[in-house]
Amino acid sequence: MALSMYEVTVPVFVRGLKVLAALLTKAEQHVEQRGSVPDAMISARLADDMLPLSAQVQRASDTSKMSVERLSGVPAPKFDDNETSFDQLRQRIDNTIAYLESVPAGHFDGSEQRTITLNFGGFPDFTGASYLLTFALPNFYFHVATAHDILRNQGVPVGKRDYLGMFV
Amino acid sequence: MALSMYEVTVPVFVRGLKVLAALLTKAEQHVEQRGSVPDAMISARLADDMLPLSAQVQRASDTSKMSVERLSGVPAPKFDDNETSFDQLRQRIDNTIAYLESVPAGHFDGSEQRTITLNFGGFPDFTGASYLLTFALPNFYFHVATAHDILRNQGVPVGKRDYLGMFV
Repeated sequence: MALSMYEVTVPVFVRGLKVLAALLTKAEQHVEQRGSVPDAMISARLADDMLPLSAQVQRASDTSKMSVERLSGVPAPKFDDNETSFDQLRQRIDNTIAYLESVPAGHFDGSEQRTITLNFGGFPDFTGASYLLTFALPNFYFHVATAHDILRNQGVPVGKRDYLGMFV
Repeated sequence: MALSMYEVTVPVFVRGLKVLAALLTKAEQHVEQRGSVPDAMISARLADDMLPLSAQVQRASDTSKMSVERLSGVPAPKFDDNETSFDQLRQRIDNTIAYLESVPAGHFDGSEQRTITLNFGGFPDFTGASYLLTFALPNFYFHVATAHDILRNQGVPVGKRDYLGMFV
């Protein structure tokens, strides 16, 4: 076996969240340069019944912290989903990273075999490994990529290299 | 160590590619029901300078097969990027899956330490583990999520449960 459960969770999520914070900063700069309204960017979405930018950030935060709580057993902080500014969204990200980085790597030992039961969505039980690989990671990247896609759709000058974290 | 390099590559990519094929089928059904033009859906994009749906599928194919080639040493097939129909895009996915599933798990042994050098983009050298976790997986999910986002933006009735592969 080549990878620990810790390696495929905490550093991966921290990196993705830093990417997201950097994307938000580029979006904020774009709004300032255009003299447009931050609220319009923060509430932008790709379809009427799809979550806006702010909620993509909140769900990336939740997916990462709840995955780590379920796998490590260390309770994650609860946040109120009331962020309405770029500063507040970056603070949410910082608070999420602080929790992730507080969890000792040893708490993930054996988590690949742990039974993970979600109390929503009608999903079957997972092992820790299948939960991480078929639910947590795809879900996390969905929200980071969709945040990026919303910014692209809104004309913010970001691209794949931002998403891949070459500048983080 | 809890996870093998094989577990975090081949089954993950195969699953994501099947999700992508199922999304394409829903897009095709939507086009048929609307009596609209398949070409418009296949060339849809979120920004003028962003890749269209067909290219998101081609890049998901490339990311998965090139990652597996680099980590396993088993040469991947080359494809011409000339798909212009839903059938051709699904065939591209099937051909990609056939290659991925042909690679023996044992060929990934020790690949976490292998030096991976990309001949584009100005990236520093990776270890196999860092290549997988900071480049290959984020890149792969980017293209699957963006394909989903293009369909959502075009009004195709798909959602997170399709993306997560609950129906695959």
